[in-house]
Amino acid sequence: MKHVAVTLGDPGGIGAETTFKALIALDNNLNKNTHFHVFGSDVIYTHSTMTPLIAQLPTNTTLHSVYDLPNTFVTGNTSPENGTAAYTYIETALDWIKSGKCSTLVTAPISKTSLQQAGYTHTGHTTLLKEKTNADNVSMAFFTNRLKTILTTVHIPLSKVPSLITNEALSKTLDNTIKMAQLLEIDSPKIALAGLNPHASEDGLFGTEEQDTLIPFVKDSQSDNYILEGPFPPDTIYHRAYKGDFDIVISLYHDQGLIPIKLLAFDEAVNMTLGLPFLRTSPDHGTAFDIAYTDQANPNSMIESLKLAIAYG
Amino acid sequence: MKHVAVTLGDPGGIGAETTFKALIALDNNLNKNTHFHVFGSDVIYTHSTMTPLIAQLPTNTTLHSVYDLPNTFVTGNTSPENGTAAYTYIETALDWIKSGKCSTLVTAPISKTSLQQAGYTHTGHTTLLKEKTNADNVSMAFFTNRLKTILTTVHIPLSKVPSLITNEALSKTLDNTIKMAQLLEIDSPKIALAGLNPHASEDGLFGTEEQDTLIPFVKDSQSDNYILEGPFPPDTIYHRAYKGDFDIVISLYHDQGLIPIKLLAFDEAVNMTLGLPFLRTSPDHGTAFDIAYTDQANPNSMIESLKLAIAYG
Repeated sequence: MKHVAVTLGDPGGIGAETTFKALIALDNNLNKNTHFHVFGSDVIYTHSTMTPLIAQLPTNTTLHSVYDLPNTFVTGNTSPENGTAAYTYIETALDWIKSGKCSTLVTAPISKTSLQQAGYTHTGHTTLLKEKTNADNVSMAFFTNRLKTILTTVHIPLSKVPSLITNEALSKTLDNTIKMAQLLEIDSPKIALAGLNPHASEDGLFGTEEQDTLIPFVKDSQSDNYILEGPFPPDTIYHRAYKGDFDIVISLYHDQGLIPIKLLAFDEAVNMTLGLPFLRTSPDHGTAFDIAYTDQANPNSMIESLKLAIAYG
Repeated sequence: MKHVAVTLGDPGGIGAETTFKALIALDNNLNKNTHFHVFGSDVIYTHSTMTPLIAQLPTNTTLHSVYDLPNTFVTGNTSPENGTAAYTYIETALDWIKSGKCSTLVTAPISKTSLQQAGYTHTGHTTLLKEKTNADNVSMAFFTNRLKTILTTVHIPLSKVPSLITNEALSKTLDNTIKMAQLLEIDSPKIALAGLNPHASEDGLFGTEEQDTLIPFVKDSQSDNYILEGPFPPDTIYHRAYKGDFDIVISLYHDQGLIPIKLLAFDEAVNMTLGLPFLRTSPDHGTAFDIAYTDQANPNSMIESLKLAIAYG
């Protein structure tokens, strides 16, 4: 039996609704060997808009109330208490994973603002999980059926990107790309490195990074265990990967990788964290406070996140 | 009767094949008020792989031989003579447009290398046409049925992009965006400005350009004639425009605009030049020397380029 930890995220957002809808929607056959442990609060489970969903939850789900949130908790917005609750859900889930009671983590979206209101300085799940697990090389990646990409840099100004595309950063990302392929059971993965400049610089016409850093990196990183090619013109490599030419694209910056992912799989992309001691997946959307507790949230990305955890966690 | 000038591009590439296939494929009803003037060379028209296509050309097409290319011309590669030929096709087509005999230009792909081998220093059609027409503000834009975007910067290193996103550059691009909307007969166009940084910087967390330049530009550029909104997170604005929320997206750099275009319409995107005294369209692909004169070239993008010229030129 596989045990998956699921954190409900910010109590003010759509985390609970998408999680319960997803657990209900998931095919029972798929889950017969999986048990889900949901980490949240009683007042969420008994909220009037949640009780019809709770009633339909499959038997392979256990709800844990791990933070005593008051009845007056803020829905549809941030609050210090929401931040503390969200933090506690993650902390408890990590304890369960550390003690071996769960093997995989699926996280509903948190609010950076609520966390900060509660006194935490983390900018998101990735930094929090990295700190809590003492992981030294963590990468953000995105999974869809036909296109998978991993980011070399994430939440930094575009102007800082070129100077951060170093041999060391690329090596760390490649290590996590290989972990991603192993996790997804892709043998001899075909990995494409995106270029940085238009047309991958056309032999240096539009920038020097391809010739100075990217081409030597690809040359020096060849292995019998995978195929690594590139740097490729960024505007066509995602289409080639989507067609099947490559298993995973190494993107150099946030929007290079996220524009194609959001365009091809707006509601179904899964955010994966590589480099932690366990697999963590999450939906590729935010707290959506504006539609929280109104039964309008689309659970597709959470469904895909749970499926990935079931299949590979 | 509308007269459209079509240049065959580099004689070594797929320009001729895609042009003839496209002229044949175009619906006759669509063309009954259009006459096509093709500018090329006799040795292309009589090439063994072209004669079966030439035989099927509709009667609204006139082939002009405007450069005396020898029988021994280079196919499948660059050459000085190919460069001079391609240049002459464009020069002659421009003469026809200047004298009022044609109103619109459709160009098959040229080779920068052939041009340079022939002694020309232009890096492509856009710089050549800009110089020949004395146009002072020219923009590259891309047309697909559901997504249209115009580029603020084009073939420059990514590291130079942030410093080139100035109020003046944005104003010039907005002017050409409005011209594009007029040309495409879009009344009161809804225009979206893409951000530069991840999440459009999240209020300055990941970069300063949104707050220093982009937000003030949008505020100062409001008008009754169009709707201008943004800056938007780059990773979701193309999906929103594709869904119908916006008519045209102003992209800040090459791959920001081209990644979504190539992903959504790899074979059908049309490159438009705005800011010239006439409409110029071209297929969104290169000379493809590797498959030239082998009957493998896909004419879809040329078909769409001709359709756009017929409809709006």
